[in-house]
Amino acid sequence: MTGVGSAYATLEKRFARLSAIGGASAILQWDSAAIMPEGGSEARAEQMAALGLISHELLTDAAVGDLLDKAEADAASLNDWQRANLQEMRLRWRHATAVPADLVEAHSRATSRCEMTWRKAREEDDFASLSPSLTEVVRLTQEIAAAKSAAFDLSPYDALLSEYEPGCSRADIDPLFADLEAFLPDFLAEVRERQAAAPQIITPEGPFDPAIQKELGLDLMTALGFDFNHGRLDVSHHPFTGGIPDDVRLTTRYRQDDFTESLMGILHETGHALYEQGLPKEWRSQPVGLARGMALHESQSLLIEMQLSRGPEFLSFALPKIRKAFGGTGPAWDQENLLRLYLKVEPGFIRVDADEVTYPLHVILRYRLEKALLSGDLQVPDLPGAWNEGMKTLLGLTPPNDRFGCLQDIHWPGGAIGYFPTYTLGALSAAQIFASMSEALPDLSTQVRAGDFTAMMDWLRANVHSLGSSKSTAEILTQATGSPLGTDAFKRHLKARYLS
Amino acid sequence: MTGVGSAYATLEKRFARLSAIGGASAILQWDSAAIMPEGGSEARAEQMAALGLISHELLTDAAVGDLLDKAEADAASLNDWQRANLQEMRLRWRHATAVPADLVEAHSRATSRCEMTWRKAREEDDFASLSPSLTEVVRLTQEIAAAKSAAFDLSPYDALLSEYEPGCSRADIDPLFADLEAFLPDFLAEVRERQAAAPQIITPEGPFDPAIQKELGLDLMTALGFDFNHGRLDVSHHPFTGGIPDDVRLTTRYRQDDFTESLMGILHETGHALYEQGLPKEWRSQPVGLARGMALHESQSLLIEMQLSRGPEFLSFALPKIRKAFGGTGPAWDQENLLRLYLKVEPGFIRVDADEVTYPLHVILRYRLEKALLSGDLQVPDLPGAWNEGMKTLLGLTPPNDRFGCLQDIHWPGGAIGYFPTYTLGALSAAQIFASMSEALPDLSTQVRAGDFTAMMDWLRANVHSLGSSKSTAEILTQATGSPLGTDAFKRHLKARYLS
Repeated sequence: MTGVGSAYATLEKRFARLSAIGGASAILQWDSAAIMPEGGSEARAEQMAALGLISHELLTDAAVGDLLDKAEADAASLNDWQRANLQEMRLRWRHATAVPADLVEAHSRATSRCEMTWRKAREEDDFASLSPSLTEVVRLTQEIAAAKSAAFDLSPYDALLSEYEPGCSRADIDPLFADLEAFLPDFLAEVRERQAAAPQIITPEGPFDPAIQKELGLDLMTALGFDFNHGRLDVSHHPFTGGIPDDVRLTTRYRQDDFTESLMGILHETGHALYEQGLPKEWRSQPVGLARGMALHESQSLLIEMQLSRGPEFLSFALPKIRKAFGGTGPAWDQENLLRLYLKVEPGFIRVDADEVTYPLHVILRYRLEKALLSGDLQVPDLPGAWNEGMKTLLGLTPPNDRFGCLQDIHWPGGAIGYFPTYTLGALSAAQIFASMSEALPDLSTQVRAGDFTAMMDWLRANVHSLGSSKSTAEILTQATGSPLGTDAFKRHLKARYLS
Repeated sequence: MTGVGSAYATLEKRFARLSAIGGASAILQWDSAAIMPEGGSEARAEQMAALGLISHELLTDAAVGDLLDKAEADAASLNDWQRANLQEMRLRWRHATAVPADLVEAHSRATSRCEMTWRKAREEDDFASLSPSLTEVVRLTQEIAAAKSAAFDLSPYDALLSEYEPGCSRADIDPLFADLEAFLPDFLAEVRERQAAAPQIITPEGPFDPAIQKELGLDLMTALGFDFNHGRLDVSHHPFTGGIPDDVRLTTRYRQDDFTESLMGILHETGHALYEQGLPKEWRSQPVGLARGMALHESQSLLIEMQLSRGPEFLSFALPKIRKAFGGTGPAWDQENLLRLYLKVEPGFIRVDADEVTYPLHVILRYRLEKALLSGDLQVPDLPGAWNEGMKTLLGLTPPNDRFGCLQDIHWPGGAIGYFPTYTLGALSAAQIFASMSEALPDLSTQVRAGDFTAMMDWLRANVHSLGSSKSTAEILTQATGSPLGTDAFKRHLKARYLS
């Protein structure tokens, strides 16, 4: 590249190597979850630890700091993408160097231990057995937050949040969540009342052959534009999208008695996957070529799953395929009945099973509690009580036990404080992006009914995917939708879908 | 470990890290061959190159040489396995440091290019298009051989051979191969005459469902003792055994019109896999815990495939399963007919399709030619002529074209000179080990007929697998069979199987 400072060029080489190691780890991570025989887990843990350590050493090497200084001093010689890339490099370096290595290691060991304890504690509904190791994880996370707070000049919570959603802070989230908290309860009551008066839902009866569910999933993935030359669909216990942009590894799980869970799961993960596959090809090995953050990532999965796939237009296209796949006939397979099934709203205990109306309330509860845990206002042993109280206030439910309460999520035992809000930021973004896209593409409804997603994908590629991390989440969203993130589009979407 | 010198302990840590990176590479290698979507290949090449480079840097780091010196000076404080481990470390270090880094890189780039050229050249039967890049590979391999020759004080050919079969030299191979070359032609003629007089072979007719072939394969793997908690069976274009001892990834390919190819292929790879799974658990992350060499590895696959599985005892056990799997009835499924099918001897052009009688002649040809290529006595452009001449002398055949001649193998384009002899050393070892094992286990025939392979596997574990690289190939073989490697057991085996 002519005119590119040599410091910057050296950094690109270093980050390309980091990208290769990160890519190797991502494929191995997928392998562990999807196909590795159980007896391979110990050796795999050693492999992952070795690659993690090597990456950390490559990134925190003293030379990198000097190179960043030099490249920044010479930033005028770089083009926009290179400058954005340099910023991302600096951000990664700051995250990696902000925390002392022994603290990173202690945290990593504590979370591994706590996750294992959590699996057993959840199974046996035994919060007391988790409490000591979770206390330790929270304590170490507080230390990390303090270190990052100092390094980034952010509040401790914002410093953690910025790992998952760079540039986002409590000051951004609080008003959005307050607005939802004010809106949702009454709205929820109204939807519930209306759904109670609607015809009863008839659940299609299985068994549904997993091989046929898979064929159907592959068919819809293909229609949406998933590139199977750069990705696969497999099975894992917890569905996820892994791998790398050039080789996206998507997983689902199949239930014999219910095809909708895997179908909607596949569509959700396909949204994530399309984002990954649409990232800028010429920046594959550099930080600026990666997905912007968790909120935008979740917006792409929810845009496909919630905004698109649960709408009547998509169902018009997909229903003949679904009926044909399972030989479905009769009232259970009627479009109106299936839409009612897909859009059923009902407060429940479990976040991952929640509908799009009650989901934000689950997130608000966790956001509130994790802020209190981090600040020390809430002690781990008091978590079950605080959780149940919050569930009562927000969703009107009292969990029968901690398994259906504060033991359900792996995030905190895994040390991920500051992650939960991104789910709802994603839902808000999805609604806002889908609304703007629908305005920009007046024929979208007709196209979706016909199973033609080309214009939609072109729009998403141009306005979201291809930007990678070249701009901030706020910039991408504002540029794509004309306004910063708000709750209006989400509320309009909910009203249109559930009350009209 | 009490009493272990700190230099040695530091080396163990370094080699554990190398083992973890090597293990990651091995799984990714399997992934590339078995399940990776094609579009992932470029990114995968970057991942493999990054891991390879990191391993090379970790191994050739100046500190390692010092640590080896110190540990060797203090070797009296180590136990036998530690001392053997230290020897293996030194050997790896010598291989890695013997060749200048730029030569390694040039060789690696030239072989990648040549392999790609070879694929096309083979397909189009166009040796001329391969000749320049193969000449370059041979030239660089000569340079590497010269560098290793100096570092190891071995002849250039022996220096290359020692990478695949440490401790083995031309002086060991030449008399063995001369003996086979004297024995095989007459023997072959006699077998051919006898087989011509036998009842005509009836080939079972397909199609054979790959899913059923897989079930049958899994069944036999289980019977032989393959541990599915530490391994898998998948599909790839070229069958191989990959992964790591704790997670062995075995592959095969299925033909609809012939079940024997995949069945024998699975049994062959299972032999490799059982060796890997039987390596000493407590030395998993160290060089001394790895398989001894390619000859012993091939001996384990041929012991299962050739010695065991093509014998009448094994077929008594397996035939009811095979018949049941494919619903086979009638004369084609008769035990005598199937044995004749499995033991059919016929000179052919293609090594990988060869029977166990003609296979060594293919290897002898390649051994002769690759020595001449390396010494410069044979120039690459003259290879087709020399090949065809050798085929005529050794097997009485003239290849119709180079595709069925010198273009058939990937080894030389891949830079692997010194590998071919290990196939036949493996066949000789397999016969010798099987004979000794049969003597040590007088009930083996009865056990095999009953599908009980426990005693056999216990014997192989104790006498071969569990020794890892703690002794030389020659020591392991002599200890297990009472004599150094020879041709007697192999010739006795051939006579018993084909002429009695």
